Amino acid sequence: MDLKTVSVLLFDDFETLDAMGPVEVFGCLPGCQLHFISRHGGEVTSSQRVVVKTEQAVISPSEAILIPGGQGTRSLSQDADYLSWLQSQVDAAALCMTVCTGSALLACTPLLDGIHATSNKRAFTWVTSLNNRVHWQPSARWVRDGKFYTSSGISAGIDMALQVVADYRGLEQAQDIARRMEYVWNDDAGNDPFAVDA
Amino acid sequence: MDLKTVSVLLFDDFETLDAMGPVEVFGCLPGCQLHFISRHGGEVTSSQRVVVKTEQAVISPSEAILIPGGQGTRSLSQDADYLSWLQSQVDAAALCMTVCTGSALLACTPLLDGIHATSNKRAFTWVTSLNNRVHWQPSARWVRDGKFYTSSGISAGIDMALQVVADYRGLEQAQDIARRMEYVWNDDAGNDPFAVDA
Repeated sequence: MDLKTVSVLLFDDFETLDAMGPVEVFGCLPGCQLHFISRHGGEVTSSQRVVVKTEQAVISPSEAILIPGGQGTRSLSQDADYLSWLQSQVDAAALCMTVCTGSALLACTPLLDGIHATSNKRAFTWVTSLNNRVHWQPSARWVRDGKFYTSSGISAGIDMALQVVADYRGLEQAQDIARRMEYVWNDDAGNDPFAVDA
Repeated sequence: MDLKTVSVLLFDDFETLDAMGPVEVFGCLPGCQLHFISRHGGEVTSSQRVVVKTEQAVISPSEAILIPGGQGTRSLSQDADYLSWLQSQVDAAALCMTVCTGSALLACTPLLDGIHATSNKRAFTWVTSLNNRVHWQPSARWVRDGKFYTSSGISAGIDMALQVVADYRGLEQAQDIARRMEYVWNDDAGNDPFAVDA
């Protein structure tokens, strides 16, 4: 996996920054192409009313996929048909990243069973109730387990995306992107200022 | 000015996070509506290839306007016709925020003459060369002067937007949004980790 293509999976009522934070990071990575996809293609509207154009998804095995969270995950988490399609997309991808309650959506498929993962800490009770076979981490800015990177809420997606760049393209590249963004990178996955009290 | 409407001014090759960071902040503010506008309306594409739907701009006097930066400002800064239109929009607004090289664009109109302002620190030489009647600040996360808030590069827009919320809706509201975003707010305008060496 050389991080040449990242497909950003959008749905109505996605949380804007969940997607657009990592998009900024990967969009600044030399030789990395971004695709904006959704199940049926067409316009998708975020919770903050950004209308984004998407294509119908076709995930190839060399791709990374990014799944944001947001209010839209509440209804999709009960949509068996959508979840089955989501599972096939993530199965196809070489790498899967979730931000915020994107991991909640993924936990409604069997893909996270037995996997260490995290999510938004404000929604943690709901998220963890969805699947008790996931090893949910109450204190983690992000977690990597196999091909899955899951991050905490909203802005944590930026820290995770920079780590993905560090892992696949080197630390210097990640630091350079953070500097370009004038962003103080929290580069310690274990430093979670919003951890759920144990 | 009660921060009920924020119009986000987009153009081709805007920097994604310049716009979408503040959009996340204002989109989470109760009773605040976001509009996405451009000179001619229609689809606008960011430097990171996000295609966003926009409407033709109609700024009313009670509105705030947000101007992102990005590569697109380079050509627009030489487009007299665009600059004259931009000036009329910003003149109409009650409050004007810029992120990154958004202030460069604004400095090509007379609106920032005599105003204290900042911008992206990596592009500071170019930005400051555009207008020496602006009091450019080499070390500032953001600057407020009258109706203008100008911020440093890319991620600094989030810190500035939270300050705007604090100024117009109270500190507690801003802190609540930062917590919701799981974002460690740099709430000190004088704390600029990316300042240009004096």
